[in-house]
Formats: sequence, C-alpha cells, structure tokens
Amino acid sequence: MSKATHIIRFIANEDNRIHLGQLVDTSRDVGLDSLEGKEIKAYLINGSIFHPEVTSHVYTVKALLSPIAKEETNYIRCLGLNYKDHASEAKMELPKAPILFTKPRTALADPYPAAIPIPKAAQDGTSDYEAELALIIGKTGRDIPEDQALDYVLGYTASNDVSARTLQMLTGQWSFSKGLDGSCPLGPVLVTKEAIPDPQTLNIKAIYNGQTVQDGNTKNMIFDIKKQISYLSQGTTLEAGTIFLTGTPAGIGFFRQPRVVLEDGGDIRVEIEKIGTLVNKVRYEEW
Amino acid sequence: MSKATHIIRFIANEDNRIHLGQLVDTSRDVGLDSLEGKEIKAYLINGSIFHPEVTSHVYTVKALLSPIAKEETNYIRCLGLNYKDHASEAKMELPKAPILFTKPRTALADPYPAAIPIPKAAQDGTSDYEAELALIIGKTGRDIPEDQALDYVLGYTASNDVSARTLQMLTGQWSFSKGLDGSCPLGPVLVTKEAIPDPQTLNIKAIYNGQTVQDGNTKNMIFDIKKQISYLSQGTTLEAGTIFLTGTPAGIGFFRQPRVVLEDGGDIRVEIEKIGTLVNKVRYEEW
Repeated sequence: MSKATHIIRFIANEDNRIHLGQLVDTSRDVGLDSLEGKEIKAYLINGSIFHPEVTSHVYTVKALLSPIAKEETNYIRCLGLNYKDHASEAKMELPKAPILFTKPRTALADPYPAAIPIPKAAQDGTSDYEAELALIIGKTGRDIPEDQALDYVLGYTASNDVSARTLQMLTGQWSFSKGLDGSCPLGPVLVTKEAIPDPQTLNIKAIYNGQTVQDGNTKNMIFDIKKQISYLSQGTTLEAGTIFLTGTPAGIGFFRQPRVVLEDGGDIRVEIEKIGTLVNKVRYEEW
Repeated sequence: MSKATHIIRFIANEDNRIHLGQLVDTSRDVGLDSLEGKEIKAYLINGSIFHPEVTSHVYTVKALLSPIAKEETNYIRCLGLNYKDHASEAKMELPKAPILFTKPRTALADPYPAAIPIPKAAQDGTSDYEAELALIIGKTGRDIPEDQALDYVLGYTASNDVSARTLQMLTGQWSFSKGLDGSCPLGPVLVTKEAIPDPQTLNIKAIYNGQTVQDGNTKNMIFDIKKQISYLSQGTTLEAGTIFLTGTPAGIGFFRQPRVVLEDGGDIRVEIEKIGTLVNKVRYEEW
C-alpha cells in the first residue's frame, strides 16, 4: 500500500456507502467531471483521513463529499483580509497580524450536487462568495515554528467563504455572518502536501454563472501559510482536523460594480491550480 | 433515579477516575470548598451530561473538572459587549445585534487546582479576566424562537473569558486573542435550567486577589439569553454541547484605573449567585 496524494470522500455506486478514496486519474478535474456526470474512479483507502493508505480496490463515485467529515473536525479557522489586492478593494489598511475569525463545523457543505443553502436570515440579496485555498491540519501541534509549519499540514483543498454581508455589517465581529449552515463548501479533492510542495504559487479563481469574478494567486497572501500556522499556534493547540481558510483575493461580490450576489439557482465555482474545481449551485431555503 | 440539578465532573478519591456526579449538598459552594480542602461528596451519575440520571452511589471529590469534557463540545460561542455598563466603560455604542466571537474547545480549563496558563505570547502584563455566566446547549436546534430558547439549555455555570489585550488590539477580530489554551476556565458546578428558571436575575462578580473588581447582575445584559440563542440559531445549527459565554459586566482589568492584570500566582474568582465560585490561580508558563 502507498500513501494517498489525491483524496476524495464519496458515496460509492457499488454499496451506497461513504468511503475515502484515492483518485485513479489524478490529472482530471473531478469537480467538473461530477457536474458533467462523467464517471470518477477511486482506489479505496484504508484507515482515516489522517493515515490514508491506498488499496488496489476500485470503486466508482455516486456523489462527492467534503474531504473531511464533520465529525473529524471541530473548528474552522479563517483568515480575513489576507490578500493585498483584497485589502485594497476593501479600502482597509494591511493588517499588522493575521486576522482570525471562525466557522463552526456545521458550516461544512459538500461539493455539487450538494447546494449552498441560503437561509432566510441571509436572503436579502447580499450573500456572496470568497474563493479560498483551504488546508487541513494533519497532526496536533502548538507553538509551531514557521520552518516546521508545513509538516503539520495534511493537505490542501478548495473552499468558499460564503458571507452574509448585511449580517456582517451589523457588528464588528464576523463569526456569525460567515458561520451559517452551509457557508463553508469544501473539496472535492484534498491534495496532500507531498503533491503541493509550494502552496504559495497557485492560481485561484471564483467563477459565478460563467463569469470569472476573482482571479488571483496565493503568492499575494499577506501572511503566507507558514506564518498563519506559526502565528495562530502561539499558546494555542491546533488540533488535527482543524481546517484553515487562508483568505481570499480581490473580486468579492460585495465590492464589485455592479455588485454580484449569490442568487437562487446560481452556479458558483472555486478553481485552484493543482487542486481542481469546487462547484456548487445556490439554493434559497424555503420558509 | 432522578434527574440531576447540580452536576460536577470530577476525579474521585475512590478510584482516581473521572466521573459525573450530583452534589450531595447543593447549598455549599464547592469551588471554595475545593480551595479550602474541604470534603465534597457527589452521587454518581449514570449516562452522559446530556442525560444525567442520579444514582445512590456516593463518591468523594479529589479534583473538580470543567463540567463538560473537551470531547463533548466543539465550539464556544462568546458574546462581546453584552452588558450596558461594560459597553459604557469601553466607550462603545450599544451593539445593534449580538456580537459573536468564538473560542476553540482547546481553550477549556478546569477549576482550581488547575491553573489559568498564560503563554509566552501573552506574558506582557496585559492579560485579564472577564466574569461571565456560561451555559451549555443540551439539544441540537436551529431557527429557535425566543419563547422556546431556554428549552435548548442544559444548564448554567461560571466562566472566565481570559483575554490577551495586546494581541486583541492588534486586529479587529477577537477569536485569537481570546482563544489561547486555558482561556476558558469553566465550572465547577453546572446547575440545570430547572434549578434556575430565570437566568436574568443573577449577581455576578469577579474577585482578584481578594478585591471585588466586577460586580454586576445578569439583568443588565443587552441581549438576554433567549435573544442570544434565538438570534445565533438563525440559519445556524447549534449542536448539543455548544458552550455560550454570555458577556461580562463592567470592571475588566484593561479599563480599570490603575489597570488590573493577571499576574503569575494571582487568585482570580468568578462568583455567580445560585451557581457558586470558579477559582483559578494564574500560572505564567515557562519558556
């Protein structure tokens, strides 16, 4: 058995159950494949996401899920204003230190065919997207030096920091308006750190209804991933399974002229180089 | 068997293991008893903290722990600026909506003899206390109406929102500076909602090295507990085991003249009517 590099969590056609798998063809963008109904094959993985050993048993994907299950995480740490171009469009000073807000694990949402649910509280036409490179902490640590920080990373995936802007502007703290159920779509592929030795050179885009609305590169982060992990682990235990959302580049809907908002039925995609595309449709909840 | 009303989690003298118990004498302040080395007895509880059935088997307490184990919770929701007198001393406008920041479960700390650890990152003499009424959510819910909100409460306890002020002032978001390891002492007694039908009439104090530094009443909350639960459950699943810290009254060390800070070896207590006293000593970590 070998260690996995491109991990998915999925419901299998073979038994209708949830499995971890290693993509058979790591060169395909399975987020788009799923949208287009193309067959996706994966070697079954033995063990947990933290010790993913690949077997030779192949299953086919019925539905892609977020790569980590809700029960395996408990805290989603998010960086605010962490790209130079985004701080500029927000007309905010460059931060003096990493800006941390959080989402509860109940915010996790699966890739397409799962939707991003917009609840009643955020149906005023001001909810939008933020394309973000996400990572999952693979082993528990504290007071982690920058030069060891990437050792604590299990891997990287795509995420969308869905934000309810009217609620966000009501108070100075962001953890409620950015923590609604389904406000953290994640996946579909978790690419392990061995397959992405340098996470600071990745193109990252958001595409809404076919229009590219964010087009950045992780090299423009203000605090790079090593610094984020090191800074936020000061006096603070980062548990294995913790998810980091590492900030978003310029182009969020709230600052665009005219504004772009997530409308019922909209198609929002986060595309990250070497990882692939996270696709979701937007669904306004009935009430 | 009857349902518990005054729950503690503790290490027992009898077997050196962790148990849930119901206080035999509910009229005593076991936080102070523990500090003074007085014997504390508890009926063992069958089942989890969410279904606490009291047995007739009595054990004695070797050490008090936080009433909920780290593994049974995953998110600590904290209210900022939620007392009128505290908003006034902070020279902040009254908030338009509940202000939410969060702590990770790794912030939980036990009552005395456990200490509040002050890590290197916060040893600049600006860490202080915030006495807070805490509650634990007993059943999972979402979109909870105010008139049903207290049905979702398991019970109430004392907590201390330990805050690293220099780190807090570096950015506009508070979840890092208030989320260090040990920054959420909790307990020792969880009083179930049946024993506190009205949580909005409780005196609450902080006492540092024998001096009363906060002296408030939960009637002065800006958003009462019903409103907090209802508002923060909009479009948001509150999982059973979620902890709420409901805000602090005036008198925090950072705003006092002269300032009061948590010094190595200091004795900080949070005393809440009908619940008792949460005692901790402060311990500056070596590095």
